[in-house]
Amino acid sequence: VVTDEVVASLRDELVGIVGASDVIVSRDRLVAYERDWTGNWEGRALLAVRPATAREVAGVLVACSRARVTVVVHGGNTGLVGGATPDSDVVLDTTRLDQLGDVDNHSFQVTVGAGVTLERAQGHARVAGLDLPVDLGARSGATIGGMVATNAGGRLAVRYGTMRTSVCGLEAVLSTGRIIERLSGVLKDNAGYDLPALIVGSEGTLAVVTRVRLQLLRRPARRAAALVGARDYREAVALVSHLRARLSVSLEAADCFDRTAMEAVCAYLRVSDPLSEPHHVYVILQVAEPNDDPAATLAAAVDPELLDAMVIAEDTARRRALWTYREALNEAVGAQGIARKYDISVPIAAIPAFAEDARQEVERRTGATATVYGHLGDGNLHVNVLGTSGADDGLDVAMADLVAAHNGSISAEHGIGRAKRSFLGSTRSSAEIEAMWAVKRALDPTETLGRGCVLPPWDEPAAIERSST
Amino acid sequence: VVTDEVVASLRDELVGIVGASDVIVSRDRLVAYERDWTGNWEGRALLAVRPATAREVAGVLVACSRARVTVVVHGGNTGLVGGATPDSDVVLDTTRLDQLGDVDNHSFQVTVGAGVTLERAQGHARVAGLDLPVDLGARSGATIGGMVATNAGGRLAVRYGTMRTSVCGLEAVLSTGRIIERLSGVLKDNAGYDLPALIVGSEGTLAVVTRVRLQLLRRPARRAAALVGARDYREAVALVSHLRARLSVSLEAADCFDRTAMEAVCAYLRVSDPLSEPHHVYVILQVAEPNDDPAATLAAAVDPELLDAMVIAEDTARRRALWTYREALNEAVGAQGIARKYDISVPIAAIPAFAEDARQEVERRTGATATVYGHLGDGNLHVNVLGTSGADDGLDVAMADLVAAHNGSISAEHGIGRAKRSFLGSTRSSAEIEAMWAVKRALDPTETLGRGCVLPPWDEPAAIERSST
Repeated sequence: VVTDEVVASLRDELVGIVGASDVIVSRDRLVAYERDWTGNWEGRALLAVRPATAREVAGVLVACSRARVTVVVHGGNTGLVGGATPDSDVVLDTTRLDQLGDVDNHSFQVTVGAGVTLERAQGHARVAGLDLPVDLGARSGATIGGMVATNAGGRLAVRYGTMRTSVCGLEAVLSTGRIIERLSGVLKDNAGYDLPALIVGSEGTLAVVTRVRLQLLRRPARRAAALVGARDYREAVALVSHLRARLSVSLEAADCFDRTAMEAVCAYLRVSDPLSEPHHVYVILQVAEPNDDPAATLAAAVDPELLDAMVIAEDTARRRALWTYREALNEAVGAQGIARKYDISVPIAAIPAFAEDARQEVERRTGATATVYGHLGDGNLHVNVLGTSGADDGLDVAMADLVAAHNGSISAEHGIGRAKRSFLGSTRSSAEIEAMWAVKRALDPTETLGRGCVLPPWDEPAAIERSST
Repeated sequence: VVTDEVVASLRDELVGIVGASDVIVSRDRLVAYERDWTGNWEGRALLAVRPATAREVAGVLVACSRARVTVVVHGGNTGLVGGATPDSDVVLDTTRLDQLGDVDNHSFQVTVGAGVTLERAQGHARVAGLDLPVDLGARSGATIGGMVATNAGGRLAVRYGTMRTSVCGLEAVLSTGRIIERLSGVLKDNAGYDLPALIVGSEGTLAVVTRVRLQLLRRPARRAAALVGARDYREAVALVSHLRARLSVSLEAADCFDRTAMEAVCAYLRVSDPLSEPHHVYVILQVAEPNDDPAATLAAAVDPELLDAMVIAEDTARRRALWTYREALNEAVGAQGIARKYDISVPIAAIPAFAEDARQEVERRTGATATVYGHLGDGNLHVNVLGTSGADDGLDVAMADLVAAHNGSISAEHGIGRAKRSFLGSTRSSAEIEAMWAVKRALDPTETLGRGCVLPPWDEPAAIERSST
C-alpha cells in the first residue's frame, strides 16, 4: 500500500519534471482514467502525469521506481483487457507525446509521437498520398503508442500484417530511465538484438513507447467492398481461402460476423440486413486494385453460386456504409450489456470446428447464444457472451481449453492485460512463461511498469494456472 | 581452457544423446568446421555434434552448459562475420534437423527443420505453387535456421521484407534445455512477449533454432528483370524511388553495383558488360505482375532518357543470366583476394552522400578502389576493400564513423558475429547495449551460446568501443 505521504512527495517531484499543470491529482479528473470504456475494468489512480518527451518520461519512471510506486501507461483507453486501467498505480498519460514528423518520400516513413491517434496519423499520411498498413474501428481514439504496445491487428492484417510489420523503429523508455532510440528507419539493421521487436506487443510492461517510426504504403486507389452470405463457417473459410489464392495482394480484408451479430448491429444502428434473406455467416471482403476495376475482379473471383447472396459496394460512401455493419459491432454488443469477450485465433483450417464447438459450449453453460465476429482471413474470432454473471468463470476455462485444443491463441489482437493473465498458460508452455519472466526481470528489475499485466505480480508466483507443459 | 579430460567426458555424454556416428572428434573431419568460406575466420572445434531433434539439442546444451563448454551453431557456413566459426567451442551442426513439413493450403505456411537449405525449402514450396519471400545468392548452402538466426535479407527484401517478416513461428532451445515451441502459425497471437521475434536475428547467442514455421506466398508468375546504367548514385536512387512509388508491389528487387564490381564480375565469369558503354552505377531491377506484361510495365515506368542505357530480360533464362552479374559478385571479389567487407545500411536518401564519402575514405587510406554492390531499394550497400593488411584497422573505425554520421547501421544483413563486435557501439547507444546484456544474461545465464558473438565475452567488459552515448 502506498501512503499519502509517498504520493504527495512523488507529486512534488513530478511537478518538477513536467510542471504543475501536467500532474493531475484531483479526484474528479482522475475518474476519467479509472474506468475502461467497456465497463469491465475499474481501479484507482494515485495520480496522473503527462510527460511531453522521452526525457520527461525517463524522469517520471525513475521517480516512481525510486518511490516504489508502479506505473500504468494510458493511451486512448480503447483497450479491451484492462491493460490501461490503474490498480493503485500512477497513470502515465501519453496525450502530450503528440508530434507528427515529416513524411520521408524516399523511404515512405514517418515518425510520430506515441499519443497521436490512428486517425490523425492516417490523415497525415494521406496528405502525402500514403497510408498506414493497420486500420481498426477505434481509430478516432486508439493511439499509435497503444497500438504498438498491443501489436494491434484489425481488418487489414490479412494483407499488410499486424502493427509489428509497420514498426520500422521506435523510441522507448525503460523503468531504469534509460532511453532506447531507433528511429533512423533503415529497413535492414542486424546490429544486435531487435529490442523494438521485443517491445512491440509487450503491453507497457517492459518499456514506455514514446515515438514510433512507421512504414507507410501507397494503398491501391481503387477499392470495392462486398458482403457475402454463407451457409456456415466451412463455406465462409473455403470462400476466403479461394480468394486469398486467387486474388493474392488484391485482397485487403476478409472479415466475418454471424447471424446474431447481424441482428445486434441492425437493432443498434436501426438498419436492415443488406442481403435479402438471413444467413448463418456473413463475410465482408475488400479488394483494392492499382489499375483494374476492383468490383469486377471480385465478382470474377467468387463462385457464381454465391453471387445471389452478395452485395458489392463500389463508391466510397457505400463501401463505408457496408463496413459500418462490421465496425459498429463492438458498440452494438456493448449497448446490450457487459459482455464476456474472447479474442482468440486458431489456424484458419480449424475455424469451422472451433466456431461450432464454441457455440455449443456457450449454449450449454449459459443458455445464451454467442455473438461472433472477427477477421476470418487471419483466423481471429471475437466471441462475445452476454448475460453471464461473475459465477461463470467456468466458461473462461472451457474457452481457453477449446482454443488450446484447436492449436490457437487465447489472445489474438487484444493482448493479455489483466483480463487473461491467469490463462496465459493455456496456450503458452511453462518454458515460454519462464523465459518471459526472465526478460521482464532483466528489463524492468523494479517491476515498475504494468504490474500485474501479462504476467502476474511477482509476489503471486502461483497466479498462472495450468501451464500446458 | 577446456582440458582433454573434460572433452573426453563430454564426448561420452553426447554419444549417449545422439549416438556415436553423430559426435565428430577426428581432426581431419573437424577441419571442415574450423574455417569460414571467406578465409577471414579460423578457429578450433573441440568436437562437433549433430542432433536430430529439439530434445537432442536440449540434451546437448545442458551437457555442454554443465561441463562449462561453449557452443557455436553451424548451419551452411555461408555467413560473413565469423558467427559460425568455433573458438574452442563445441560445434552444433544442424544438418540433421532436416524435416520438411506439408504445405498448409489454407494458411500458405510450412514447417521446416533449421538445417534445411534455402534452395530445398524453395523447391518444396514451389511444388505447391508457392514461394519463400526471401531469396539470396547463397541459396544452395544457406540454411533456414541460419537465415533466421541472422535475419537474412537479400534481394527481395525491398518487396517482401527480411526473414523476420516470413517467420510466423519457431521452435528453439535455450541453453537451460528449455524448449520454446510456437509452430501453430496463427497470424495474430498477442499472448505474452514475442520470444520468436527476439530470437530472430540474435545470431545463435540466445537460443538454438530447431524448426521454423514459414509464411509462403504466391509470387506473381510473370517476371522481367532489367539492368540500367546510371551516371551516379543520385540518379540511381532517384530511379528506384520513382519506381517504388510508381510500381508499388510490382517492384520485387532493386539492387545495384558499381563499375569496379562490373569489371570484377566480367573478369571472373569471362563475360562482357551487357550495356554498350560502362557506367558508374548499375541498377538491376525485377518486376513481377500477376496478369500484365512485366517488361511493358517496367519500360513504361522508366524515364525515357534512361531507356538507351537499359537491357530488359523477359524469359527465365535471360533473367537468370542478368542476375548472375549481381549474384556472382561475392565470389568474384573473393577470387581476387581476402576482402575487408562492410555490410552497411543508411536511409535511402543518404546513399549518394555515403557512397561518395566511403569511396574517398577508402582511397585516401588504402590507395585502393572499393568494390560496392548491394540492395539500393532498402539502403543496404556492401563495400569490399581488397589488398589491405591487418594494419588497416583505422579503416574499420572510419567506416563505422561514416555510417553513424549518416544515421545508418554497421550491419545491415550479415549480422555482428565476431567480426563487428567491437563496433556495435558505433550505431547502438550504451542504453541499448546494456539492455542487450540484460536479455543475454536472462536467457543464457551460463553464457553457453555463441560466446563472443554480438556481445563481447563477459570477462572482457571493456571490449565494446566508443558507445555513442
